[in-house]
Amino acid sequence: MSAPSLPRFFSHQLLVAGSLRLEGDEAHHLSRVLRLGAGAEVVLFDGSGREVVARIATTGRHAIGLVAEQPVEVSRELACPVRLAVSLPKGDRQKVLIEKLTELGVAELVPLVTRRGVVQPGTAALERLRRHVVAACKQCGRNRLMAIAEPRGVSSLARSQAGGLTGWFADPDSGNPSLVAAGTVDAEWFAVGPEGGFDREEISELVAAGWKGFRLGPTILRIETAAVAIAAVRAAQILGAH
Amino acid sequence: MSAPSLPRFFSHQLLVAGSLRLEGDEAHHLSRVLRLGAGAEVVLFDGSGREVVARIATTGRHAIGLVAEQPVEVSRELACPVRLAVSLPKGDRQKVLIEKLTELGVAELVPLVTRRGVVQPGTAALERLRRHVVAACKQCGRNRLMAIAEPRGVSSLARSQAGGLTGWFADPDSGNPSLVAAGTVDAEWFAVGPEGGFDREEISELVAAGWKGFRLGPTILRIETAAVAIAAVRAAQILGAH
Repeated sequence: MSAPSLPRFFSHQLLVAGSLRLEGDEAHHLSRVLRLGAGAEVVLFDGSGREVVARIATTGRHAIGLVAEQPVEVSRELACPVRLAVSLPKGDRQKVLIEKLTELGVAELVPLVTRRGVVQPGTAALERLRRHVVAACKQCGRNRLMAIAEPRGVSSLARSQAGGLTGWFADPDSGNPSLVAAGTVDAEWFAVGPEGGFDREEISELVAAGWKGFRLGPTILRIETAAVAIAAVRAAQILGAH
Repeated sequence: MSAPSLPRFFSHQLLVAGSLRLEGDEAHHLSRVLRLGAGAEVVLFDGSGREVVARIATTGRHAIGLVAEQPVEVSRELACPVRLAVSLPKGDRQKVLIEKLTELGVAELVPLVTRRGVVQPGTAALERLRRHVVAACKQCGRNRLMAIAEPRGVSSLARSQAGGLTGWFADPDSGNPSLVAAGTVDAEWFAVGPEGGFDREEISELVAAGWKGFRLGPTILRIETAAVAIAAVRAAQILGAH
């Protein structure tokens, strides 16, 4: 059986050969949901890029003891990092957003605070988003977690351009080039506004800092659809080029 | 107020200038959910590519009477049709799949019956998928419905290639080119298999009929993620070329 077909669990403890312990949600998932017991093999990853095959030794109420082989570096990352700043959608759409961006290999998601935005995630919300990242990494085989950054406003994001980064923001203005315009091949940041879009002041701020607008298509895309479409196109471009 | 910012409703009746009636789900959505009353303006579309601004004249328990202006053709379609055959995922993931493909301008979705597939939609399920298409068209501004075809098996899909169509199927084999390979620019059909992928026999059948495999990336994508990624990349290619 190849390692990727074994059930995967996230280890908060850094991986080492020998004894490892799973606790909390991961222990629950292993013993209560999947009902795995002593002797079964699983894969553990710790988010650093490594994974390890481990055998379950003991199962208890709150902790699972495992014996691990030698951890190995297995990268399923894109050759260039894709970073998105997104004005978060509400409810279940957040989960769809996080899950799909994680699967598609996005390196970092910045929750973007905008004037028309409806969601300004607090600490608990950010923790929930990070749990969605872990769940998606368990399923899709990534050994590095998509980073969920602290929320930032448009001004702060615009200024990050100062370091010479290339940033593009989604905007339906018909004068904007489409996403596969030559320039986006080197893009380092993409920004997606709220339902209703960035307001004029936010667009001015981005443009003044060197960001460029691009359009995504003839329809009005939901926030998470726009973000996932960008991630898919960038992933395809990077895979096609390497 | 521009037409796209008015709430949109789907008319089962072909649009004409003058008196129109909404019934069933659409009447419920208009009067009970959005609580619109006589005098309010809405946009109606009938799936044929046209839309019309209409004013509510009467609201009743089961039917809404409206007076429509002259219907106009407003296309928010891609310049080339994108067609996908997908082994459907379960539950809520179906809704995500249909909503995102509709927003991204896919012309036709064929539910694909595969040996490892878990969902073989019957009449009621197909009707539910079509309702998701209508809901997404109301939201995203498309005036043509994404077609939900009758389910087909892999053999039947493979044979459709006989007419000289170019078909590509998602397959993680490392020898396959990536999605942005030159050949996919003219692709007319894409196929996405079930969790676990197409089996050997299905792949042989597709290849024998002239279909080509492509890979989507280093991670294991869920069915709906793969399908949405393909739609996003094709839409971006088509928008970039026209």
